[in-house]
Amino acid sequence: MAALDAAGEFETINRLLRPLAHPDYARNLEDDVAVLPSRSGYDLVLTKDAIVEGVHFLAEDPLETVAQKLLRVNLSDLAAKGAEPFGYLLACHWSPRCGWPEREAFAAGLKADQAAFSIHLLGGDTVATPGPASFSVTMLGWVSKGRAVSRAGARPGDLVFVTGTIGDGWLGLQAARGMLTLDPERVEALIGHYRTPMPRVAFSGPVRDLATASIDVSDGLLADLGHVAAVSGVGIEIDLERVPVSAAGQAWLDGRVDLEAALERLTTGGDDYEIALTVRPGDEGALRREAERRHLRLSQIGRVTVGQGVMARLAGKPVEIRKEGWTHD
Amino acid sequence: MAALDAAGEFETINRLLRPLAHPDYARNLEDDVAVLPSRSGYDLVLTKDAIVEGVHFLAEDPLETVAQKLLRVNLSDLAAKGAEPFGYLLACHWSPRCGWPEREAFAAGLKADQAAFSIHLLGGDTVATPGPASFSVTMLGWVSKGRAVSRAGARPGDLVFVTGTIGDGWLGLQAARGMLTLDPERVEALIGHYRTPMPRVAFSGPVRDLATASIDVSDGLLADLGHVAAVSGVGIEIDLERVPVSAAGQAWLDGRVDLEAALERLTTGGDDYEIALTVRPGDEGALRREAERRHLRLSQIGRVTVGQGVMARLAGKPVEIRKEGWTHD
Repeated sequence: MAALDAAGEFETINRLLRPLAHPDYARNLEDDVAVLPSRSGYDLVLTKDAIVEGVHFLAEDPLETVAQKLLRVNLSDLAAKGAEPFGYLLACHWSPRCGWPEREAFAAGLKADQAAFSIHLLGGDTVATPGPASFSVTMLGWVSKGRAVSRAGARPGDLVFVTGTIGDGWLGLQAARGMLTLDPERVEALIGHYRTPMPRVAFSGPVRDLATASIDVSDGLLADLGHVAAVSGVGIEIDLERVPVSAAGQAWLDGRVDLEAALERLTTGGDDYEIALTVRPGDEGALRREAERRHLRLSQIGRVTVGQGVMARLAGKPVEIRKEGWTHD
Repeated sequence: MAALDAAGEFETINRLLRPLAHPDYARNLEDDVAVLPSRSGYDLVLTKDAIVEGVHFLAEDPLETVAQKLLRVNLSDLAAKGAEPFGYLLACHWSPRCGWPEREAFAAGLKADQAAFSIHLLGGDTVATPGPASFSVTMLGWVSKGRAVSRAGARPGDLVFVTGTIGDGWLGLQAARGMLTLDPERVEALIGHYRTPMPRVAFSGPVRDLATASIDVSDGLLADLGHVAAVSGVGIEIDLERVPVSAAGQAWLDGRVDLEAALERLTTGGDDYEIALTVRPGDEGALRREAERRHLRLSQIGRVTVGQGVMARLAGKPVEIRKEGWTHD
């Protein structure tokens, strides 16, 4: 087979990846495996997400932010489960456009986010592909034994919250494609949000302690809440006017004629990497205090009901949602 | 982004992958994560390998055996470290050729090998790519605390062994490409070996208990022993005439004019997924007994020396190796 690769597997590992290796578990990337000691009183939480050029990121996206986004979409999954990340395995499927400078940029992105999120590289594989570049990460984190939050625990009467703002991921994609007419400053902010979303790792503790169910918002807010409703066997009602939007999102909304259609776009667009969670009414105060302590925006957007599926309302009236989020397959 | 996929992510997960999920750790594939309890007295061993169509497998290879090979190359890594596998995370980057029948075939391959090797699906991701199909697996196994074999423990005086036979992977690739003139029966056997190599999972216990260093043979026997020599800080001498070959391999060798060049091909070709290991001379008897109990061929092919690098000999005379294994990047 021998797909010889200009930039070289061994050089990539030796010069770019080895400096990123976990000091204890990665065997200096000189073995085929990582070896992880058991941690009494904790469960290991694992998630694996893949991204493909032209599907999950754009060919024009710098590889530095591609690496960051790759880590962050996985970190987001762990945060929503209440787990604290510590390391990851990485598979790079380099395309011909991934020469040495691009790989250096990719490694720089990994390095920056390793520092930002206290994680290290545990191992993985690097291969060449003639096709578009793609990457996958298996992210590992610890959570106190038996405490990983599921999608299944939402109960009628629970309140529905979301962190941060919704819609910037989708708006950012439109901005990166040059399809958005807004102030250059806002366009920049949205592109930045699309390329390097901020996973709510810092909020994983309160999610673990207070959420009855949770999910990270990747497919689209309404689709993701639909997953929670389905697995929990409940209904969820959302007040669209309570869905938090950023200043850039508000500027975009202000230019729309059809508010309902615009809100539908933002709540089905996906790529937000916020946490949507359900909480017992008695825990609302504690949850809000934890968010305030972290200077994190937190919004109550709805409630859990007896029933099934997600019902979105605008000014109290049901809104028919035609598309519950993008399919990223 | 929304790369809509004819065969559908949700259908693929619901109908093909969910039946393969681990009964305890996979959360029925209804969450973004797997949750794994700690196991006191054991270390978790993780490996991650990726394969790309046209690089690590052929476009003509049936997806059933592609799935099996994907699992097996990862199982081979764990076996060489003395670890017992139990589960894996999977990323599928489906290309347009992967319609529903191909996905069914892929899932059938997973199912067959889950039964053969006592493993289950823990989670993962399924995405579409316009490029060639590619897949990656993160395989997990347990090993008694502190007992994962490394590449670093070979000491001068140790004996070098290899399981099974060497060269069938490379010969099988030639056969699959129609480049081999042998009896049809032998050609079939070699193609079978290339598509579904047999990882030495059943030998992981003796490797754990008796090997001073070990590695699975994927890059090529001499290249892989070179990794052991480098990390252990020793030299390794190999007697090429003692390298075990299959009946098909012997038939091919018999047709060669230049035996040295032919043996060089077989020992640098890679894709064997046997285990090469070093053992203290006093443990030779125990190792041979364990192999016999398992009806596994085991051959002593050389010894560890003071020095560095791998020296191959034929009839006692040093052979210059021009290419120490394929680079699969």
